[in-house]
Amino acid sequence: MTEIRVGLLGLGTIGTGVARILIEQQVLISRRLGKNVRLVAAADRDLSRDRGLDFSGVRLTDDANDVVTADDIDLVVELIGGYEPARTFVATALEHGKHAVTANKALIAKHGEELFPLAAEKGVAIGFEAAVGGGIPCLKALREGCAANAVQSVYGILNGTCNFILTKMENEGADYADVLKEAQELGYAEADPTFDVEGIDTSHKLSILAAMAFGSKIRFDEVFTEGISKITADDIESAAELGYRIKLLGIAKPHGTNGNVERVEMRVHPTLVPVHSQMAQVSDSYNAVQVSGDFVEHTMYFGRGAGERPTASAVVADIMDIARVCSSDGGPDEVKHLAPAMGFVESERRDLETLAVADIECEYYLRLMVQDQPGVIASVTSILADHRISLEAMSQKERSEANSVPVIMLTHETSEGNLQAAISRIVGLQAVEEDVLILRKESAVA
Amino acid sequence: MTEIRVGLLGLGTIGTGVARILIEQQVLISRRLGKNVRLVAAADRDLSRDRGLDFSGVRLTDDANDVVTADDIDLVVELIGGYEPARTFVATALEHGKHAVTANKALIAKHGEELFPLAAEKGVAIGFEAAVGGGIPCLKALREGCAANAVQSVYGILNGTCNFILTKMENEGADYADVLKEAQELGYAEADPTFDVEGIDTSHKLSILAAMAFGSKIRFDEVFTEGISKITADDIESAAELGYRIKLLGIAKPHGTNGNVERVEMRVHPTLVPVHSQMAQVSDSYNAVQVSGDFVEHTMYFGRGAGERPTASAVVADIMDIARVCSSDGGPDEVKHLAPAMGFVESERRDLETLAVADIECEYYLRLMVQDQPGVIASVTSILADHRISLEAMSQKERSEANSVPVIMLTHETSEGNLQAAISRIVGLQAVEEDVLILRKESAVA
Repeated sequence: MTEIRVGLLGLGTIGTGVARILIEQQVLISRRLGKNVRLVAAADRDLSRDRGLDFSGVRLTDDANDVVTADDIDLVVELIGGYEPARTFVATALEHGKHAVTANKALIAKHGEELFPLAAEKGVAIGFEAAVGGGIPCLKALREGCAANAVQSVYGILNGTCNFILTKMENEGADYADVLKEAQELGYAEADPTFDVEGIDTSHKLSILAAMAFGSKIRFDEVFTEGISKITADDIESAAELGYRIKLLGIAKPHGTNGNVERVEMRVHPTLVPVHSQMAQVSDSYNAVQVSGDFVEHTMYFGRGAGERPTASAVVADIMDIARVCSSDGGPDEVKHLAPAMGFVESERRDLETLAVADIECEYYLRLMVQDQPGVIASVTSILADHRISLEAMSQKERSEANSVPVIMLTHETSEGNLQAAISRIVGLQAVEEDVLILRKESAVA
Repeated sequence: MTEIRVGLLGLGTIGTGVARILIEQQVLISRRLGKNVRLVAAADRDLSRDRGLDFSGVRLTDDANDVVTADDIDLVVELIGGYEPARTFVATALEHGKHAVTANKALIAKHGEELFPLAAEKGVAIGFEAAVGGGIPCLKALREGCAANAVQSVYGILNGTCNFILTKMENEGADYADVLKEAQELGYAEADPTFDVEGIDTSHKLSILAAMAFGSKIRFDEVFTEGISKITADDIESAAELGYRIKLLGIAKPHGTNGNVERVEMRVHPTLVPVHSQMAQVSDSYNAVQVSGDFVEHTMYFGRGAGERPTASAVVADIMDIARVCSSDGGPDEVKHLAPAMGFVESERRDLETLAVADIECEYYLRLMVQDQPGVIASVTSILADHRISLEAMSQKERSEANSVPVIMLTHETSEGNLQAAISRIVGLQAVEEDVLILRKESAVA
């Protein structure tokens, strides 16, 4: 039986999971693939730690350069994470004619547009299913399963840490800081949680989804990004009373004329979703990606967005896809028989503009702190009316101990620019505090 | 640009949808595929009806034989449905060296095991993504996305008609017969609804999923199948009070030793699922498939299980997958570069036994009609205890107007054989009516 020879960079959590599948699941993989996938080499700086695996027959090294240039390796799996040296290693592997598979969303979001042409030039493939949605085969579903569709929207709960925190805040009525601390103690959140809780990780993933959905180039730096750190237990309760649950969503939509996509809307922010929607049920560290298309209507893909075993499952699925088109007779590998990495043939991917933040249209949840005196609400609503912003709901809670009381407002659709103009006038009112919480609402999730 | 030439059998609902995509979405498909997909011919007995499409350049015929044997067609799409003449047409197309794509679950469930070897012999592919879950790319997710996993279970809401009826019964507290009548008037259910409401359609789909999950042959005739026609509004209410929702589920699980699958459990029946589960939220005519694997854990795929546009989306995705491996220079098509139709290479698919019905283990929901007199419940529970069946919950509702009152019982896990033995003793009690409703419960859905 022919085989594909794999070299692994990084034996951390995911790397160990990938090694585990390749070692323990060898027979099953061969039965599905008709070829063997053989782990030939693995590089990690720390080779002393016991990973509970039998690495006999596997070349272990502390020098990743040995793996990315080795003659006896067909495919390199990068599981180091971060921008560098991951980029250099992957680029070197591609330059040496090796296929590459990675779970590194930061790498693809920031450097994908350098790596894709390099791979094309060298006639090799790049797989990165594990970079978005962990174990969920959501990129495959979008790229291949929904390939007949003009994609109309992509919504995703893409960060398990944020979803874990929001779920726990809701279930326990607890405040953000307390839950974060608990999540850190349990290992669900990093000591420095910025990357997750401020939405950067979600933005990485969303920028990949958006480019794949609309045939555009990845523009990670242009994603409008807000995190979850300003949300209070009261906001979650207020949203629930109005029939919504708060999730950190990545959202991408196309804009254009006559069916041509001209601009791409990309945003990541805490979002109110209807409590009975499929998306609202995605709890704890689960992830989900909704893809809606002009023919398929709504589809949703749900599963574990992180973790050793689920993420490794997606990495090995990529390896198997690539292995299928590998030549068994020494001829060139037929990567043209794979779906293009980004869902469109490389020459058809456009350098589309990102929709300006001011032009984003959505519905809003506003939390204003106002002095509990007659006329304040009238002044606020009059400013909103000036800006043609209509209200769907409003609630004002009494709080005896404080000077100010929170007023919650749900607006109908308006543009971000118009809303911000109204808000700047509203906070100019003497009876309204500076600090306004702006969340957004999506009724169109499945 | 190279092209793949498609011939269509059947211009009914789905066929029209496929033609619509191929005509209207031509540019998008080429940008994703790097090839053109051209609709060359379409056959239907009724060519007079206006389908609202511009068929210029398409050969329309009322003779399907012309299409399946034509020299200028690379791939035949069968959308006639049913066993015959669909089987003959698909077999003829394969024999003529043409790839085949179908949305016909009955065909694949009953005749797949004849068609797969024929396709392999001729070096052509068969695609049937649309046969299970309509527009949802669930077969691709199972076959390719979860390929690194030993699959531990598959659960599916696979029939939109049943899910529509159950959702409406729950929302409106209405009885089965009334909702069925309404569904028929709305076109959501056939005049003869047997195929859907008695679970046969779900069995077709489940048998395909099971064989793909476990590397076994399709054994549609051996699926344990019960429909939804005996469920009452009271059952739905009782289940809700206990924290469950009733869904018609297809369930498949592997049985064996040392990781080897030796027997396959397949069953289709109304099932109580926890009300907060993802599966319980799948409402109306939506479908969902849950695949759980030893590495990926739980995944779920959700979307429209039927309808012109969603089903056509899946058909065209199959066409595009096959088009990718089609030779552009007159050489042989490289179907070995596609994932095997059934997820395992054909020679590795085993003729596994189906788990005997008596050996199925699950939790049960029982509705007994008993005379409202002292000692009856004690007699019933004593029989259950004899059979080592323990109760999770029990509720007895008063009904003034009737002689008998319904008693609802939830049991812990036991085998079907053991339960049936206990039930036959219970209905032997003088105070218990013959007619016992047995539903099943699954707590492991995501």
